[in-house]
Amino acid sequence: MTYAEGARPDTSLADAVTLADIRAAAKRLDGVAKRTPVLTSRAIDHAVGATCFVKCENLQRVGAFKFRGAFNALAQLTPEARAKGVLTYSSGNHAQAVALAAALLRIPAVIVMPANAPDVKLRATRAYLADAPGPSDVVVYDPATTVREELGGAIAKDRGLTVIPPYDHPHVIAGQGTTALELLEESGPLDHLFVCCGGGGLLSGCAVAAKGLSPRTRVIGVEPELADDATRSFRAGTLQTVRNPPTIADGARTPYLGRYTFAIVAKYADEMCTVSERELAAAMALLMERLRVVVEPTGALAAAGAIRTARERPEQLAGSRIGIIISGGNVDLADIPALLAIAAN
Amino acid sequence: MTYAEGARPDTSLADAVTLADIRAAAKRLDGVAKRTPVLTSRAIDHAVGATCFVKCENLQRVGAFKFRGAFNALAQLTPEARAKGVLTYSSGNHAQAVALAAALLRIPAVIVMPANAPDVKLRATRAYLADAPGPSDVVVYDPATTVREELGGAIAKDRGLTVIPPYDHPHVIAGQGTTALELLEESGPLDHLFVCCGGGGLLSGCAVAAKGLSPRTRVIGVEPELADDATRSFRAGTLQTVRNPPTIADGARTPYLGRYTFAIVAKYADEMCTVSERELAAAMALLMERLRVVVEPTGALAAAGAIRTARERPEQLAGSRIGIIISGGNVDLADIPALLAIAAN
Repeated sequence: MTYAEGARPDTSLADAVTLADIRAAAKRLDGVAKRTPVLTSRAIDHAVGATCFVKCENLQRVGAFKFRGAFNALAQLTPEARAKGVLTYSSGNHAQAVALAAALLRIPAVIVMPANAPDVKLRATRAYLADAPGPSDVVVYDPATTVREELGGAIAKDRGLTVIPPYDHPHVIAGQGTTALELLEESGPLDHLFVCCGGGGLLSGCAVAAKGLSPRTRVIGVEPELADDATRSFRAGTLQTVRNPPTIADGARTPYLGRYTFAIVAKYADEMCTVSERELAAAMALLMERLRVVVEPTGALAAAGAIRTARERPEQLAGSRIGIIISGGNVDLADIPALLAIAAN
Repeated sequence: MTYAEGARPDTSLADAVTLADIRAAAKRLDGVAKRTPVLTSRAIDHAVGATCFVKCENLQRVGAFKFRGAFNALAQLTPEARAKGVLTYSSGNHAQAVALAAALLRIPAVIVMPANAPDVKLRATRAYLADAPGPSDVVVYDPATTVREELGGAIAKDRGLTVIPPYDHPHVIAGQGTTALELLEESGPLDHLFVCCGGGGLLSGCAVAAKGLSPRTRVIGVEPELADDATRSFRAGTLQTVRNPPTIADGARTPYLGRYTFAIVAKYADEMCTVSERELAAAMALLMERLRVVVEPTGALAAAGAIRTARERPEQLAGSRIGIIISGGNVDLADIPALLAIAAN
């Protein structure tokens, strides 16, 4: 079966990640990943009209949930694969995550990054990689002319490296799912769980974890309107794509859901919704001002989705218990004024 | 004994707050204040050359440690005093703290604030006070022409209100000390503890807690160079003052240490140090970029002090275990670009 625009989800992959896999990942991550705080705020509760539990993966190592999946995947490689090394392609947070996991596990790593990735992410990836064994390297490409999977695949084949994809891998998805596991352990039962969606790794893992622990929790994926491929795919039941969408949420510029993530999202997510760039920037400002955490645009997607849902369908959320996952906090400080200005326009 | 420039610390007040008082405050605050996270970061460790444990009181209710002291003081008022109400004067964070504590404990409150307090603090104080019983109100004054203690005292006398001073009160100091209690419980033994110093409430409470739990921990207070009254007082052994210092650290613009805080700081602090405005802004930027938390300038004092000490006397800190308290995170987002620009100049 070819996997391209119009493909149906491969239902044989929908249970490739189980709650047991996520619990096993949590054991691997114990003492390595941070157990990030769950914050609450009267201002956020007021904006959503509900009791909100905000899981702060922007306070995770490398500043994003991505460390969970990367470490969980690298930790399961065979000794032979570890010795040869790994390769990944990423707009930034997964790149840093693989770089740090490689440094911690002493595995050589090649990281393929787009030239338009935020400077803070490029710099941080290089800094983490400095502690990984050689030959480790960052390879920068032009996203307008190059498909990262093709470039990465060619280098990996040439050097015998194991590709650690940013989202479409059961071990990566299981690692990301530990985020919801921790959140639900701390918050108790939730009525709704809002999770951002780029390639769908975090959403897939969290949906499996939430449904396994608390079947009545409604899991809602949130995308930028400008990069709504997963929302259209979910609604149509067939794969839809986008190409280089100009959203400020650089982590959600992924062109399509993966084979695993499409199958899992189709089975376990209850709903998908989108937010405008302005709503996203406003949510980012609210989280910075009232929760006092630095959030990258992609990281504010789930909060923006909850606020939009509260405005459009207040009766759905009113008085309920809501989980919101902040996915990351890697933003160039120099970009913050322009991002916040979008909220005011 | 008059208390003015040149006064010696009143040693009879140096033990007005004990570790037992701080433990009792912790019980009062249990389930009311947040147990704020202690964050760690390779970048912070690298900047200081030591293992750093950063206690994030910017993630406390009202965005600052001040909630601890205010609630601990209001919770101990007699029923008669509660019925009449309280008054306080503050540049911002203590104002919000008293407003929220008053709302939670159903006590009327009058808050006296300077007209140049950050807008975010004025707005938040009014919002919290909206939930307090009447007659509650914010009174704004011109700091160039009015001494807040005099204005506040006159209103309190007129209406029979109990004054809750921002720092110079044993119940306030004991509440602030719970910050170090929690930090040390989580971090284990520390070699050094850096704490910002405005009026000295947080420094006093944390010094008593740290010395009680771990006598060998060196407690270091940090001030802006532009508002170095406590550093000069500590070194001279007599009270020194400043008047409206133009530091970006608005929480450290207090004119002098109080009777209690001078006595306690003189006895329990080991050292005082100062940082430039530029060092302060640079620490703020580092905490925002690498710890991914929003920090107000005053909130970055302790980190700036640790970084400066590491630069001037690296052998003193190298390889040690260091506590750093971020005191608050209430900053107008619109001011962040200008604050960060100071770091680059």
